[in-house]
Amino acid sequence: MADVNSVGAAYELPLTDAMPTERGDAARNRLRLLDAARRLVAEHGADAVTMDDIAAAAGVGKGTLFRRFGSRAGLMMVLLDEDERASQQAFLFGPPPLGPGAPPLERLVAFGRERIRFAHSHHALLSAASRDPQVRSTAAVLVLRRHVRVLLEAAETSGDLDAQTDALLALLAADYVEHRIGTDGLTVEQLGDAWESLARKLCGR
Amino acid sequence: MADVNSVGAAYELPLTDAMPTERGDAARNRLRLLDAARRLVAEHGADAVTMDDIAAAAGVGKGTLFRRFGSRAGLMMVLLDEDERASQQAFLFGPPPLGPGAPPLERLVAFGRERIRFAHSHHALLSAASRDPQVRSTAAVLVLRRHVRVLLEAAETSGDLDAQTDALLALLAADYVEHRIGTDGLTVEQLGDAWESLARKLCGR
Repeated sequence: MADVNSVGAAYELPLTDAMPTERGDAARNRLRLLDAARRLVAEHGADAVTMDDIAAAAGVGKGTLFRRFGSRAGLMMVLLDEDERASQQAFLFGPPPLGPGAPPLERLVAFGRERIRFAHSHHALLSAASRDPQVRSTAAVLVLRRHVRVLLEAAETSGDLDAQTDALLALLAADYVEHRIGTDGLTVEQLGDAWESLARKLCGR
Repeated sequence: MADVNSVGAAYELPLTDAMPTERGDAARNRLRLLDAARRLVAEHGADAVTMDDIAAAAGVGKGTLFRRFGSRAGLMMVLLDEDERASQQAFLFGPPPLGPGAPPLERLVAFGRERIRFAHSHHALLSAASRDPQVRSTAAVLVLRRHVRVLLEAAETSGDLDAQTDALLALLAADYVEHRIGTDGLTVEQLGDAWESLARKLCGR
């Protein structure tokens, strides 16, 4: 079995960098705005939250908010990127079975379950971001793709790994997850089971 | 092995009906317009063809064209639906290995190769239709889904068949096919091989 415990370090794709250092006030301001936005989105859903709401909740002027994030869609994208980065940290460097230390198939199973939860909890943000004409960076998607590909390879999976990677990733797409939950009445848990069934089958166990 | 030679007849989903009978002139007019549109789309791509072009090529007034099809997107959708219906006829009722008479796995392999060709040759039409606010009927997609599900079951495939169906179908999506061809430089043949690899793996051969 290939060593997948050092997989994170081997990624060639750029992960979103940590925030550049900001001067005290500006950094605090930024955090306060993002916290307010995240709280409002969690309470009311991304679609119902306005820039006025966020500025009021954070106690800053709306001008500050726009200067900082450019647009409502820009702000939503920053929120999404921060959570995406946290998720990446977890599956690349966090504790097993999601992170290094577990066998690749167990990591793959845990990864699918984690990303189905992510797709569901971030669906509104993902939708909002996808409506922005400045298309959301595909870097995050490439990291997911590379991760699945690396785990399939580490599990010594036979056959066309690119095709299997893309087929697996289809089950994690936000619109697909939301359709299966909203229209077909499945739960996040059931979708996780379906992912596990396919992952185990492809890896031949 | 379940009998999949009568699979077509067992479909519960409505296939698009054959054209309602039209009176002579109207029917001929309609065919002439569709032929002209199809020829222009094949020559120049769906994006480059205007209603003026089609009307001129068919020798009718633009008003007739709009009365008949409602809009440019409506016309594109009719073109797409006609080809979609022909493709359905082929995989449901046509000669093997695509149609009944071959083992389910061989039908599944032939189906994927046929639909990858279809996605590639109809990409411009599929794009144009998807831009219409009146979203393209999902009936065609449901027929594809049901067909793959039935073949997996007939091949006595183990595991979660819904998940495997959706995972397989992702490899046939027009945008996916076009991305793999246009950006990754794969051929239709190579994508067909990738589909076959996954189909054989899922069906356990």
